[in-house]
Amino acid sequence: MFEVIGERINTSRKNVQAAVSERNAEYIIDDVKKQQAAGANFIDVNAGARIGHEVEDMKWLINTIQPIATVPLCLDSPDPTVLEMAFQMVEKTPMINSISLEKERFDAMIPFLNEKNCKVIALCMDDNGMPSSSDDIVQRAIKLVEELNKIKIKTENIYIDPLVQPISTDVKKGVMVLDAVRAIKLKFPEVHISGGLSNISYGLPQRKIINRTFVSLMMAAGMDSAIIDPLDQKIMATIKTADMLLGHDNFCGNYLRGVRAGVIES
Amino acid sequence: MFEVIGERINTSRKNVQAAVSERNAEYIIDDVKKQQAAGANFIDVNAGARIGHEVEDMKWLINTIQPIATVPLCLDSPDPTVLEMAFQMVEKTPMINSISLEKERFDAMIPFLNEKNCKVIALCMDDNGMPSSSDDIVQRAIKLVEELNKIKIKTENIYIDPLVQPISTDVKKGVMVLDAVRAIKLKFPEVHISGGLSNISYGLPQRKIINRTFVSLMMAAGMDSAIIDPLDQKIMATIKTADMLLGHDNFCGNYLRGVRAGVIES
Repeated sequence: MFEVIGERINTSRKNVQAAVSERNAEYIIDDVKKQQAAGANFIDVNAGARIGHEVEDMKWLINTIQPIATVPLCLDSPDPTVLEMAFQMVEKTPMINSISLEKERFDAMIPFLNEKNCKVIALCMDDNGMPSSSDDIVQRAIKLVEELNKIKIKTENIYIDPLVQPISTDVKKGVMVLDAVRAIKLKFPEVHISGGLSNISYGLPQRKIINRTFVSLMMAAGMDSAIIDPLDQKIMATIKTADMLLGHDNFCGNYLRGVRAGVIES
Repeated sequence: MFEVIGERINTSRKNVQAAVSERNAEYIIDDVKKQQAAGANFIDVNAGARIGHEVEDMKWLINTIQPIATVPLCLDSPDPTVLEMAFQMVEKTPMINSISLEKERFDAMIPFLNEKNCKVIALCMDDNGMPSSSDDIVQRAIKLVEELNKIKIKTENIYIDPLVQPISTDVKKGVMVLDAVRAIKLKFPEVHISGGLSNISYGLPQRKIINRTFVSLMMAAGMDSAIIDPLDQKIMATIKTADMLLGHDNFCGNYLRGVRAGVIES
């Protein structure tokens, strides 16, 4: 079954930043409840945008969300100190967002993850920047899985983010990432493929139809998780429908519930 | 580039049957013009529904459509006599819909196709009925390609229809056909994959979102043609978007034209 990581609690979003700086708990609680009701399997929490405030903002957000969270959180920070604090506060084992192959980030994250038995998003980014070919993505994914396995993170707890790039600059960037996803799943059937999708449509008009069509293509290739806005009803409808078509929805139960709830429409 | 076979001129459709029996040329011409404007690459013509009238109905339809056809026709009949007559009437080399492995149909179609150098839709159907597994579909496709190659129909002119079956009876029917399409394209990179899609959603509510999500999954697997209603704006938008994402739309030109024409919307 496809796993949705709800992306909305991020202080880079204007309304969330305002709510966090005003300590408006009601706004945050309402948003998280909506994401959960819409089917989020994880709630991403990112407090990085107010420079110099990340520790106390993350602490306040976790304290605010924890009592009403019915799903695990996805702790989103490049700073292991912030992650360690947040990790100790949550009840359900969280997902960590994220490690990459960039030396500084990698060296900081490995000791932190070494103590944990948790799910982790692993970005196919290294000090050369974004990957430049399918094979480049695959090689970085292999390196990430190998390194995380070394510190006893199981392959089934690793969520590879292949780093979707815009097709407006190069129309082959879609096929590049789709081929990579297929190859990664062939090599590691248990690994998850996740990440953001909206970069694919950067620079083009009517972006949402591109994003939701792309998620179905990525699902056909093996993507089984994504960081998205669960309140975007059309992308959620596409995901539920594609999940059913790919054989992950016994007796079409989720699909039929979505239709009855009015969130899946022709 | 994905090829759309416009399915609307079929006497099993109530309005078309009425127009044909009244010899209402205006209705037919208007419908064909709309399909062409919407991006149909072929216009399917099926006159089979009025029992005993197929020959004269087909003749009238071709005479009516021929003067305004800017794309080739797809002559749709199980009867080689009807096909032979229609074949002689058209200006652009038509597509033939269809041959199958059912003995009677196969034996009747091979002598007809033997004289032709045309595109042909080849159904993965035999005297045992619908295929029962991915491998069954693949084996039937191989047989069809081999037999058509023997009568000098090039692989690149063969449009394999893997016969989509409803997931409402068995949720694995989607994966069954997707796996088969990938395997057929691996064995015959030049063959086309086409056919109807709407069987996939038979028995389920909100069928159109299922059909258009399925077409994108099929395109990811290698489908490059389909028999659909080009006036269904949402499925056409999905096809154009998926075709771009799969790298078949240089500089996103078709997509951008679709957006400007107002037929692709978020």
